[in-house]
Amino acid sequence: MSGNGLAGRLLAGDRRALARVISKIEREDPEVHEIVREIYPHTGSAMSLGFTGPPGVGKSSVISHLIQLYRAEDRRVGVVSVDPSSPFSKGAILGDRIRLSDHFLDSGVFIRSMGSRGHLGGLAAGSRLAALAMDASGCDVVIYETVGVGQGEVEVASAADVVVLCLQPGAGDAVQALKAGVMEVADVFCINKADHPQAKGAASEVRSILEIGHELDPEAPIPPIIMTRGDTGEGVGELREVVREHRKEMEAGGRLEARRRASLREFVVSWATDRLEKELHRRLGRDDPEIMEKVYRRELDPISAAEKIFRDV
Amino acid sequence: MSGNGLAGRLLAGDRRALARVISKIEREDPEVHEIVREIYPHTGSAMSLGFTGPPGVGKSSVISHLIQLYRAEDRRVGVVSVDPSSPFSKGAILGDRIRLSDHFLDSGVFIRSMGSRGHLGGLAAGSRLAALAMDASGCDVVIYETVGVGQGEVEVASAADVVVLCLQPGAGDAVQALKAGVMEVADVFCINKADHPQAKGAASEVRSILEIGHELDPEAPIPPIIMTRGDTGEGVGELREVVREHRKEMEAGGRLEARRRASLREFVVSWATDRLEKELHRRLGRDDPEIMEKVYRRELDPISAAEKIFRDV
Repeated sequence: MSGNGLAGRLLAGDRRALARVISKIEREDPEVHEIVREIYPHTGSAMSLGFTGPPGVGKSSVISHLIQLYRAEDRRVGVVSVDPSSPFSKGAILGDRIRLSDHFLDSGVFIRSMGSRGHLGGLAAGSRLAALAMDASGCDVVIYETVGVGQGEVEVASAADVVVLCLQPGAGDAVQALKAGVMEVADVFCINKADHPQAKGAASEVRSILEIGHELDPEAPIPPIIMTRGDTGEGVGELREVVREHRKEMEAGGRLEARRRASLREFVVSWATDRLEKELHRRLGRDDPEIMEKVYRRELDPISAAEKIFRDV
Repeated sequence: MSGNGLAGRLLAGDRRALARVISKIEREDPEVHEIVREIYPHTGSAMSLGFTGPPGVGKSSVISHLIQLYRAEDRRVGVVSVDPSSPFSKGAILGDRIRLSDHFLDSGVFIRSMGSRGHLGGLAAGSRLAALAMDASGCDVVIYETVGVGQGEVEVASAADVVVLCLQPGAGDAVQALKAGVMEVADVFCINKADHPQAKGAASEVRSILEIGHELDPEAPIPPIIMTRGDTGEGVGELREVVREHRKEMEAGGRLEARRRASLREFVVSWATDRLEKELHRRLGRDDPEIMEKVYRRELDPISAAEKIFRDV
C-alpha cells in the first residue's frame, strides 16, 4: 500500500491507518515525510494537553477520568504516552497502560505508547508527529502523557497548548520538579491524591514556590492549583474547566498562537539538528576516522574536531 | 589577559585560573576554544567518576566522604556538580553545595556547580569541558555529580570512567531509574542510608532487576551493590575500593579506552550538533522568516521545512 492511500484512510478517521502511521513514525520509516506532507494541512484544530509529573502520582488515572468527561461531550480523544526507554522493559514495566485500558474498547479514544529511541530530540519529534496524526484523524483532544520530570519530558509536554503538572502530596515532588525546570512550563497544577493527609500541605508548598516565582518575575502568572483524586475522579471536572478557561484566555491574548508557533519552530530545529546528529554518528561511528584518532591521541582537541566536522558536512 | 596566559596558569595549577576558565566555559566565551586547544594535550590522566541518582538520596554526603578518603591519599579532587536549571533559583535551592562546603577551604579540592543553560547537549558539553579543565589543572580524580534521573543526567554521568548510581531505600527509586534508562549506564550501585529499615529490601530489589537484565543479556555484567551511610561515612571506603577495582578491570580489558573514545566521539557530535541548533534558532527565531510563516499557515509541512533548512545551512 502506498503512503498516499494510508494518509487518505487516516484522514477519513480509520483507526488502523492511524495506528500504522504512528508505527511508521516510531521506526522512522522514510514514508513518514510524504504522509506528514499529506496530513499536515488537516491539522491544527485539536486542543492539546500535556500531562507531566513524576511516576506514581496517578497521572494516568486523572487522564482516564478526563477522557470520560470529554467522551461525555462526544469529543474524540487521542493519548500519546511517552515512556523513557529502559534496557530491560522498553517501557513495558509501566502499569499506566493497564489503567488506561478502560478506554481501549471505545472507538472514540485512541491511546498509543511511544518508546524512546534513545535520543530525546527524536522522542519529542516523534511524539509531536504522532499527535499531528491523531489531530488529522479527527481527534478533538490530544493528550501527551510523559513520565518523570526531566528536560526531555518538558520538551514533549511543552509542545501542548496547555501543560498540566501532576504532583502528589508528601514526596517533595514540587522541589524536584522545580529543579528540573518543569514548573516554569506548567500552566495548571494538579495535586492528585487529594485525600492524602498531606495534600493541603503540598498545595501550600506549591503555592509558596509559585508566589516566590511571581515576586521575582511579576509577569509570570500564578497558575491555578487543582486538587484531584484519581481513584474517584473527584476534582477532575474542575480540572477540565480550568484547562478550558486557561486555553480560552491564552487564545484571546494571542499567547496560544505564539506558543504553537514556538513549538513548530522547535520541531523544525530539532528535526534538522537530529538529521545532522545521525549523519555525524554515521560518519564518526563506523570505524573511527582519522580525525577522531587524532582526538584520542590528544593531537587535536575535540572542539577543533567538531568545528572541522561541522564545516565539512 | 590573553586566553594563552590563562591556560598557562591553569596548567600550573592556579585555582583562580581554573575558576575563570570554567566561568568562560559556562558563558560560552569564544576564548574557550583556544584555551581547550592549549590544555587538551595535558588531559587524560585523571580518573573520572559519575555520581547520579534522584535528589535527596545523599549523593553529596557520600561524595564528601569519598573526597576525604582521596585526600588522605594526597590525591587532588575536582567536582563538577550539575543542577538542572530552575526559573527561580538557577540551582541555588539545592543544599548539596552546603554539605560539600567542608572541603571549600582545602586547596586540594575544587568544587564547581554548573547551571544548565536550557539545552542538554550544551550542559553535557560544558560539564565535560569543566572536567577537562580540572584534569589539566592537576586534579587526580574528577567527579561529576548530577541530580535527578533523566536522559540529560545520564549523558553527563556517562562521560565518566566509572558511573555510580546512588539510590535510597523505600522510594521506588530503582524502578524510576530503570525507566529513565539510568541503570544501564551504572557500573556500581550505591544504596545510601544503609541504616534505613528497608535498606536490605532495596538492595535485593535492585539485585533482582539487575539479574533480570543479566538473564536477558548475559553479556551484561551484574554491577556490585554497595551499602553506604552518608551521615557516618560507613561503606564509603568499600565503595572506593570497588570503584578502583572496576576501573582496573575495565582498563585491563580495553573497555576503559573504548568508553573514553565513545565519550569523546559523543562530545564532538554534540558540539557540532549544538552549533547547528544555535545557528538554526538564530535564523528562525529572530522574526519568523517566510519559511516558518508557511508552516504556520499549513502551506508547508514541518518536515519539508526542516529538510530545506538543513540543506540550506
